[in-house]
Amino acid sequence: MSADHIATGDVERFFDGARTILGEDRVFATEIDRKAYSDQMAFDMSAHQPAGAVAARSVEDVQRLLKAAGEAKVSLWPISRGKNFGYGGTAPVQAGAVILDLSQMNRIVEINEDLGYCVVEPGVGFYDLFDELERRGHPLWMSVPGNAWGSVAGNALERGVGPQSYGDHAAQICGMEVVLADGTVLRTGAGAMKDNPAWHTTRNSYGPGWDQVFCQSNYGVVTRLGLWLMPPPPATMSLSLQMPDPDDIEKGIAMFQPLRLRGLIDHDAAWVSYVGIASYVGTRSSFWKGDGLLPEEEGAKIRQQLGLGWWNAEVNLYGPEEVIAAKARMVSAAAREAGIAAAGDWRVWREGQDFALSKSGIPGTAGMSMVDWYGGRGGHIGFSPVMPSDPRLAAEQFRRTRALYEKHGVDYYGAFGVGGRQTVAVNEILYNRDSADHRNRVTALFEELIRETHAAGFGEYRTHIDFMDQVAATFDFNDHAMVRFNNTIKDVLDPAGILAPGKQGIWPARFR
Amino acid sequence: MSADHIATGDVERFFDGARTILGEDRVFATEIDRKAYSDQMAFDMSAHQPAGAVAARSVEDVQRLLKAAGEAKVSLWPISRGKNFGYGGTAPVQAGAVILDLSQMNRIVEINEDLGYCVVEPGVGFYDLFDELERRGHPLWMSVPGNAWGSVAGNALERGVGPQSYGDHAAQICGMEVVLADGTVLRTGAGAMKDNPAWHTTRNSYGPGWDQVFCQSNYGVVTRLGLWLMPPPPATMSLSLQMPDPDDIEKGIAMFQPLRLRGLIDHDAAWVSYVGIASYVGTRSSFWKGDGLLPEEEGAKIRQQLGLGWWNAEVNLYGPEEVIAAKARMVSAAAREAGIAAAGDWRVWREGQDFALSKSGIPGTAGMSMVDWYGGRGGHIGFSPVMPSDPRLAAEQFRRTRALYEKHGVDYYGAFGVGGRQTVAVNEILYNRDSADHRNRVTALFEELIRETHAAGFGEYRTHIDFMDQVAATFDFNDHAMVRFNNTIKDVLDPAGILAPGKQGIWPARFR
Repeated sequence: MSADHIATGDVERFFDGARTILGEDRVFATEIDRKAYSDQMAFDMSAHQPAGAVAARSVEDVQRLLKAAGEAKVSLWPISRGKNFGYGGTAPVQAGAVILDLSQMNRIVEINEDLGYCVVEPGVGFYDLFDELERRGHPLWMSVPGNAWGSVAGNALERGVGPQSYGDHAAQICGMEVVLADGTVLRTGAGAMKDNPAWHTTRNSYGPGWDQVFCQSNYGVVTRLGLWLMPPPPATMSLSLQMPDPDDIEKGIAMFQPLRLRGLIDHDAAWVSYVGIASYVGTRSSFWKGDGLLPEEEGAKIRQQLGLGWWNAEVNLYGPEEVIAAKARMVSAAAREAGIAAAGDWRVWREGQDFALSKSGIPGTAGMSMVDWYGGRGGHIGFSPVMPSDPRLAAEQFRRTRALYEKHGVDYYGAFGVGGRQTVAVNEILYNRDSADHRNRVTALFEELIRETHAAGFGEYRTHIDFMDQVAATFDFNDHAMVRFNNTIKDVLDPAGILAPGKQGIWPARFR
Repeated sequence: MSADHIATGDVERFFDGARTILGEDRVFATEIDRKAYSDQMAFDMSAHQPAGAVAARSVEDVQRLLKAAGEAKVSLWPISRGKNFGYGGTAPVQAGAVILDLSQMNRIVEINEDLGYCVVEPGVGFYDLFDELERRGHPLWMSVPGNAWGSVAGNALERGVGPQSYGDHAAQICGMEVVLADGTVLRTGAGAMKDNPAWHTTRNSYGPGWDQVFCQSNYGVVTRLGLWLMPPPPATMSLSLQMPDPDDIEKGIAMFQPLRLRGLIDHDAAWVSYVGIASYVGTRSSFWKGDGLLPEEEGAKIRQQLGLGWWNAEVNLYGPEEVIAAKARMVSAAAREAGIAAAGDWRVWREGQDFALSKSGIPGTAGMSMVDWYGGRGGHIGFSPVMPSDPRLAAEQFRRTRALYEKHGVDYYGAFGVGGRQTVAVNEILYNRDSADHRNRVTALFEELIRETHAAGFGEYRTHIDFMDQVAATFDFNDHAMVRFNNTIKDVLDPAGILAPGKQGIWPARFR
């Protein structure tokens, strides 16, 4: 879709203005810069290649850059740290847009240990926040995504997830500061009152609640974000579970869902297919030298070698040992009853023991080695539908998805994060981005996944910049009323259409 | 403020149109009707007296009425069941507006027992939902506010609270249907895709999340609402706590906050001052015949007589008995350590025992007898600031509030609902609405409460229609940026300015 949308405006004029605002060293407009800010996992980096980038260090910088962009009619694509790989990385929907790089706005504004929250600027990474929490002796625990080199705020705004209790990151957002396209600085929730100390502690403020509207949208530049963090539990307990057959997914979801709904599992536990875990360990050719789809008998050898099930999950419990030991007995009983085997015993961690074993969110990037699965310069793209935690529907979605992977000759790698009400599927499509064959197959697979999942009644909850319009088009109730509504709001908040045109399929009038 | 805003438009023309749309029997335009839809607790019902009311039974009715209102330039004030007493009841901000009564849209659209949610139309009351759940054997438990004659949806949209685990009602909203001022039917979240079964199970859909924007706003008419309900626990445990002195509030909050943050108390437990509880039992004159403020020694007699502390709270735990028994031991230990006395032992309820003792939310209205405190035709108005769960700040807020009550000669009645991060204060100001003296004192007290609370840095999270502008004005960051933002959105979504002008201080252009 993206080729239809080429950013317009006087980019040179904008960069000249930006040099005046920021100085030469924070304007990146060379060919090398353009490549550096492109999608590093794209088959063709030029498809979404930006015109360059500008790096803000303050709200005032952002305001001035928005003004300059409006005057030059140049589109700005804000990124926090730009690590949203699998969904586009640093790159904009529109080739030719200018990246508004916020990674130098990296102040941890506040950590409130008693009330359990932090306030971060968009450039604060998971490692930065972890370092600060570690310096303080872990008075609060983090939830981190699988690959944690990105921005804490950016990840939450894009609805990233982690395997901890506070793992629905957007759900932890409370109170933000946003610069609107016209330069107005807005503070949401209780922050709409000057110096109100409840800003990051309550969502029950006066009038409409706006926080979630600035998630996955292009209505403003979020320059500060409040995020709830977990109080440290005195103990954690952890159990690995395995299931031997692909069709076991139905019983795996049926087992987790009621435990999660009733608070007996303290996070959305995920069933991960074995190829995913194998891809963290080695390349495909380190396991099997053949071509084509990984055969089931070779898969069985891999599972044997790595001690994996077809599906693998880890259940974590957090709290006083007496409480979580009671929960653990119930989880074990439910697993036994479902005929699901534990891989080992419950592991217990107690305050004062080695923190690395605590099941706190500890940032890492080891998982990114999955992109080497097929060899070559690797890449991945995430297909992420969300559905009710209905075991039968989720199992059907699994079979549908896997069949499409196989039809297009791609090894299936999926995970089902099971909540009490929602199940989020994150399917990783791994590829060698130097292979034209992979390109064709991955693109065809992705388009068919969108189509077939939509036909089954579900939608993606986030997607790669390549497919933002296609996914938006699946939201079809009442002649796409929501897409039209989003665009209406876009036009009033950003009449010049300069902020992230096309993000999540929301387009300003000038590009519609 | 309201007297400045008198609704305009051709009301007779609108009522004629409404008769054609609805039939004669759903248009209420007599003097008796106007009184019936006024604020029954107002000192002067005419201040916000509507021009009448129209009762919709369907989305199509709502659409047609909006069209007719737009043509006649008549303001519509939607109510669900109109029981928002203490905040205005059925009455509109603007005298002369027409009430859009949704109480006949009272279908329970769905109850999903496995996934823990219901879908209701705005006219469904707490009693209706309870009856349906009871008929099914309580597969899910409700959270209900203190006076439960109102609408399930309306209460959630106005951010009502209850003393159960799911007691932050707005936080349980997931997926709604809204009719916009132009008649467009919008479905939020996953419902933006036709027939998506995840509509009421996930907030992680694609693009901006709009649910909370239709809370406490005038941007659309919510015609259907998804609300999460609690799975039934196998057991509950309940403990009453008391504190003898007003200044104990600080330690009472200090005790609850960390337990709540760590999930060891399963709901926002509230400390309620004894006058509140006494007011449910009898009138003030049944305890003491004097005039002026209730003296402390008379208060002591009331506490003695009713077996109350100055502050009183109930802690409820929900779950498997093994889990909650462990939590109960920790709550007891924390109370002991804080020097807070339990009034009796933990009461345990187990599945199969008398449901009325279960600590499920069971609707009732007994609490409304509080309005008889001063005798005469009673009334109450709620002053509801929200603050961080910081014991020192909350204690200061208590002292400030109580001193103002006393200055204006009103018996103090406050409750602090203590969450892990937020503490919501709900202060009830009781009065005899036939007393001109009460009128003057209550109004002066309320205005001073807004002013002094604002000076301390906090704001109300909901307020009476009389004070919506004054409270909105306290949200003063960046020259009231949020108020301006809300109005900007209002103008684009409701350019004719017909939907609930003035609600939460949001005014369309034609009345600004």
